[in-house]
Amino acid sequence: MSGSLGKEKVVGEKQILGKSKWLQLVDVKYVRDGQEKTWQYCERCTRPANCDVDAVTVFAIVREPSKPSRVVVVKQFRPPLNTYTVELCAGLVDPGETVEAAALRELKEETGYTGKVLFTGGKQYLSPGLTNECVKTVFCEVDASKQTRQDKEDEGAITVELLPLDGLLETLNKLEGEGYAVWVGLYSIAQTLKLQSILA
Amino acid sequence: MSGSLGKEKVVGEKQILGKSKWLQLVDVKYVRDGQEKTWQYCERCTRPANCDVDAVTVFAIVREPSKPSRVVVVKQFRPPLNTYTVELCAGLVDPGETVEAAALRELKEETGYTGKVLFTGGKQYLSPGLTNECVKTVFCEVDASKQTRQDKEDEGAITVELLPLDGLLETLNKLEGEGYAVWVGLYSIAQTLKLQSILA
Repeated sequence: MSGSLGKEKVVGEKQILGKSKWLQLVDVKYVRDGQEKTWQYCERCTRPANCDVDAVTVFAIVREPSKPSRVVVVKQFRPPLNTYTVELCAGLVDPGETVEAAALRELKEETGYTGKVLFTGGKQYLSPGLTNECVKTVFCEVDASKQTRQDKEDEGAITVELLPLDGLLETLNKLEGEGYAVWVGLYSIAQTLKLQSILA
Repeated sequence: MSGSLGKEKVVGEKQILGKSKWLQLVDVKYVRDGQEKTWQYCERCTRPANCDVDAVTVFAIVREPSKPSRVVVVKQFRPPLNTYTVELCAGLVDPGETVEAAALRELKEETGYTGKVLFTGGKQYLSPGLTNECVKTVFCEVDASKQTRQDKEDEGAITVELLPLDGLLETLNKLEGEGYAVWVGLYSIAQTLKLQSILA
């Protein structure tokens, strides 16, 4: 794929520097300006065949007449950060599953909401220097009056909240002040809304 | 920090499963519902002491009278993806450096633009299940008529472009179709603008 965009490319076999069930640390060689160089990164071992992303994230919006629009977020403990996060609902894509099906399944499992797809975003690379991990965001609308009970399996591990889109950045900053860690995709949405209010 | 938010927490020493100069794959134990479990993740070895993020990204906007606003993006080869990316200008924070100083330095080095800070976003966790990596985005304004030559060191490795904010999602989708990989922070901005146009 890179052939038409420039001369750099990965060459040879990758070496595995460390491995667990879910992740591996690898070393690859690549060519820049005719010179061979090396790069280390982390990759998931779980991406299904015939799937071009590792995971989906779900932007689910609640719109009700004469009420401010709200976005569905999940809070959960994340061992890499040793704290609780505020994220969009998310999950790995199962083999044979479309990203939209994975999104609606994860939304139902994690939050109890049934989503109606608005549109699906493109492939988003989370940290192109550190990992090949790649996700898509599925934008959905949900009816807040029809939330079913959350599945038993997530009880206690994941909590669900609705945050108003108005003042979302201030809300996230407040949560950060309380010790929560915020996922980049959610923060970017809030910061874009803030930027627009500054530039307007 | 997590004590006030819930009962889950990391316990004991982390184990190193694999290590390179820049990254390491680690295993930690944590407690959930009184049970000890394990989690593996990847961390950078380069975060400076007294710094709460690994890196900065720079959203730099060009506004000129009677012209559409444009955002400064960089294209570069990323070995983990074996292709070229479209990203916001970004870089690691040096020891003793503020995130704003790092942002203005990276912007100058990578793009030749001198930025004026509008505001700094909060801590954004890139992939809370896979890594503790954390960045802040510094939002800047630049004067497009005053671009100096890019530094020699980046010549050939990084190219700079200005993409119109109007129709940004369509532009990124077109670049994706050509084989480029798009960073989540940039895609999120574009998708938020698109979402607003759908909901308006």
